[in-house]
Amino acid sequence: MFSRRAFTTAATAAAFVPLVGTSQADAAPSDKVTGKPDKGDVRRITLYAEKLPNNLLGYGLEPGKATIPGPLIEMVEGETLEIELVNNTDVTASLHVHGVDYEFTSDGTRMSDSVVEPGGRRTYVWRTHAPGRRPGGTIEPGSAGYWHYHDHVVGTDHGTGGIKRGLYGALVVRRKGDILPDKQFVVFFNDMTVNNAKAGEAPHFMAKIGERVEFIVVTHGDFFHTWHLHGHRWADNRTGLLDNPQDQTRIIDTKITGPAESFGFQVIAGERVGPGAWMYHCHVQSHSDMGMAGVFMVADENGNVPGHDMGGMSSGTGSDMSTMPH
Amino acid sequence: MFSRRAFTTAATAAAFVPLVGTSQADAAPSDKVTGKPDKGDVRRITLYAEKLPNNLLGYGLEPGKATIPGPLIEMVEGETLEIELVNNTDVTASLHVHGVDYEFTSDGTRMSDSVVEPGGRRTYVWRTHAPGRRPGGTIEPGSAGYWHYHDHVVGTDHGTGGIKRGLYGALVVRRKGDILPDKQFVVFFNDMTVNNAKAGEAPHFMAKIGERVEFIVVTHGDFFHTWHLHGHRWADNRTGLLDNPQDQTRIIDTKITGPAESFGFQVIAGERVGPGAWMYHCHVQSHSDMGMAGVFMVADENGNVPGHDMGGMSSGTGSDMSTMPH
Amino acid sequence: MFSRRAFTTAATAAAFVPLVGTSQADAAPSDKVTGKPDKGDVRRITLYAEKLPNNLLGYGLEPGKATIPGPLIEMVEGETLEIELVNNTDVTASLHVHGVDYEFTSDGTRMSDSVVEPGGRRTYVWRTHAPGRRPGGTIEPGSAGYWHYHDHVVGTDHGTGGIKRGLYGALVVRRKGDILPDKQFVVFFNDMTVNNAKAGEAPHFMAKIGERVEFIVVTHGDFFHTWHLHGHRWADNRTGLLDNPQDQTRIIDTKITGPAESFGFQVIAGERVGPGAWMYHCHVQSHSDMGMAGVFMVADENGNVPGHDMGGMSSGTGSDMSTMPH
Repeated sequence: MFSRRAFTTAATAAAFVPLVGTSQADAAPSDKVTGKPDKGDVRRITLYAEKLPNNLLGYGLEPGKATIPGPLIEMVEGETLEIELVNNTDVTASLHVHGVDYEFTSDGTRMSDSVVEPGGRRTYVWRTHAPGRRPGGTIEPGSAGYWHYHDHVVGTDHGTGGIKRGLYGALVVRRKGDILPDKQFVVFFNDMTVNNAKAGEAPHFMAKIGERVEFIVVTHGDFFHTWHLHGHRWADNRTGLLDNPQDQTRIIDTKITGPAESFGFQVIAGERVGPGAWMYHCHVQSHSDMGMAGVFMVADENGNVPGHDMGGMSSGTGSDMSTMPH
Repeated sequence: MFSRRAFTTAATAAAFVPLVGTSQADAAPSDKVTGKPDKGDVRRITLYAEKLPNNLLGYGLEPGKATIPGPLIEMVEGETLEIELVNNTDVTASLHVHGVDYEFTSDGTRMSDSVVEPGGRRTYVWRTHAPGRRPGGTIEPGSAGYWHYHDHVVGTDHGTGGIKRGLYGALVVRRKGDILPDKQFVVFFNDMTVNNAKAGEAPHFMAKIGERVEFIVVTHGDFFHTWHLHGHRWADNRTGLLDNPQDQTRIIDTKITGPAESFGFQVIAGERVGPGAWMYHCHVQSHSDMGMAGVFMVADENGNVPGHDMGGMSSGTGSDMSTMPH
Repeated sequence: MFSRRAFTTAATAAAFVPLVGTSQADAAPSDKVTGKPDKGDVRRITLYAEKLPNNLLGYGLEPGKATIPGPLIEMVEGETLEIELVNNTDVTASLHVHGVDYEFTSDGTRMSDSVVEPGGRRTYVWRTHAPGRRPGGTIEPGSAGYWHYHDHVVGTDHGTGGIKRGLYGALVVRRKGDILPDKQFVVFFNDMTVNNAKAGEAPHFMAKIGERVEFIVVTHGDFFHTWHLHGHRWADNRTGLLDNPQDQTRIIDTKITGPAESFGFQVIAGERVGPGAWMYHCHVQSHSDMGMAGVFMVADENGNVPGHDMGGMSSGTGSDMSTMPH
């Protein structure tokens, strides 16, 4: 059963979503490294694989700060990201990424020996590129997309145990010129959970009417789902946005998704529908009934959300404030 | 096992598909209401939630006339539809719609208190809009699409019981200029049934060769399916039609679909393949073997359908005649 | 568990992939038949349905040469293919095809009486056409696509037994001007197997860096899967290639797929990622753990594949050499 909950009763692990990177698709990366022009702009971060309560695992940007999902990582086409993974867990772990360019030594699989023993560290290199034309005339697609990363070795050679316990996170690669959101929300359907939260404790998301909100949805585990958001729709393409009014891309509010698929889209909170406690949920009936449902709270100009018990409340101003702990 | 059946042995509930609305994408709505220019053209209908035999429920346009699926509702972008739901069942029910614009008070959820007690009535307002350009330059997609409506409160807060028992129907929103079909067929894959029909009693559909036929396919329940139609193909986009011959949209004759997803497409009956008893079915083998299969009867100019026992027969001339009872 | 295996320890049935047809989208078909201009270019082949060890069945181009999957058949839009099916099995079998034009008498279903008794033979006719404009102005899509064929009568009226035992194969229809691959690999996810191979014996594929490789992926049976290829991505449209750099089609490396769905795409082996033993697998965790995983071996210029035990090896030069037995 779905119950109304206040967003201020913080209790369990929040799906804290730190931004890594510029968040400005046209801005210069902050950690630019010179002298390697063939790699494009290079940034470096450290990612920590850590133990969490209840036998969970998580990735974090600082020791003791792991979250599920791990940090939302952002890149702009052309950038390179060097990620040093520090394994603070007691099992061999790795980092496998979807969508971007990496050599075999950054595959994160046992077959490529790119794994990290407990207490060890290893640098993975992710590169990205803009679309272009190959010598033969075909188009080489760019790296832009809503992607994700995860462990590939804990439990089985496919990382089944690592994924189940929380070793995953989202990656957004933007094209120069892509429109940036005001807020971002990350949802992983991991087996029958949302972001490994207990049934009925799926995160609530908060925005003020008119804000440009980006949802990033990834599936993991053994099950298939249909992501549904009440009152909002998007285009079923790379960005969720149409190119022009004649574009015949299908507009949807429900999308089938299976393990390791990922997509994202932007909506204007409450556009043409107004404020409200708009549900998001898996539309497989037994899944939603078992708790795969949360609320996208769209507040009016005064901070009120129809359908929610609370009176006035202030909308978070940054993405780190907009995912409500519970 | 699939058996040949005559379409005249009417027995159980037919999936009667009344047309609501203009059926002429460029025509003026019949129930135009003046004085509310901000809402666009406004029509009003009454929808009745009713009990049906075998513990089923259905929506209908008149008392005692409920069907499964409920009436096919059509709108043209720009129109508003005010639907008064009269609840003639013995449980609290509601009306939740996909794809169109509605305020929180028309969400049909318990959280929004937009439900109808037994014996009660409530008006839901659905608005639609054409695509346009936002002040910031991005495209706002229009409402056109193959959508659907369903109960959201019977049984569980996600309407699992209402959907299972038949409270659902299709909604088509057209863009001005969209090509209108000669006939329309609605298929809901609801768990292991087609339109809640018993196994082996999925509806047969009838058309004459050359007619423009529109299929609207919606999934509900707990299972995933692959819709397949023999001898006909379509484009996997908003309309099922290509924009131009260079359009690289994938052409398909089989489409994966999960709960609450919906799509539609138009085909020319028998185009390049001729008349025949063309099967449609879920292509999950165990599902088709269990009876999720029917026939799209394409008759030749004399009304004959190869592969069907009957001799000459007349093709129905309206969509209300083209879904065969069985 | 995934284990490293040499590609030279041939043991079980290789997924031999003979090319049928021109393999040159602009070349004249080799078996052109004159005198039937209304049919376009016509070729004729004979297909044999045969028994294989372990209660399997397969299609082949010669008696005693059946394989699973059956031969990869290629056509160019405008061609007609007349296929005589010889049934050398002990059960009634048939040939049902997706995507192309065929009259009801070539449907391969019991309802159309287009089946073949043991010891019998029957000719099925597949036609294809280029995209065009209908008299009414709408676009008629062409036949180009990644399609497939299968039995429709063994075991049940939906061919559940025939499909389960191996009676299936891929069909590629190209448009004039489509880019031809250097190599082609066919993967059928048939229930929990890859090409009916035993768990852990999914085929490995081999290419040299820079080669244009075409993957054709088809699903059959009762389950849903997510196809994932490490280190390579493609566009989710008809060809897997973008039309232009501004094309907003989603770029993916993982795709959900269900029974009888098919898709294909081309990648440049090792593009921007280099040589390696790149895994392909179903990303449903329990499926990959049970063995639905193989390797796409991309060798460097010297024939070495990082991550693989062997030293130098030579890359096959034709598609018939590029599927490794194991």
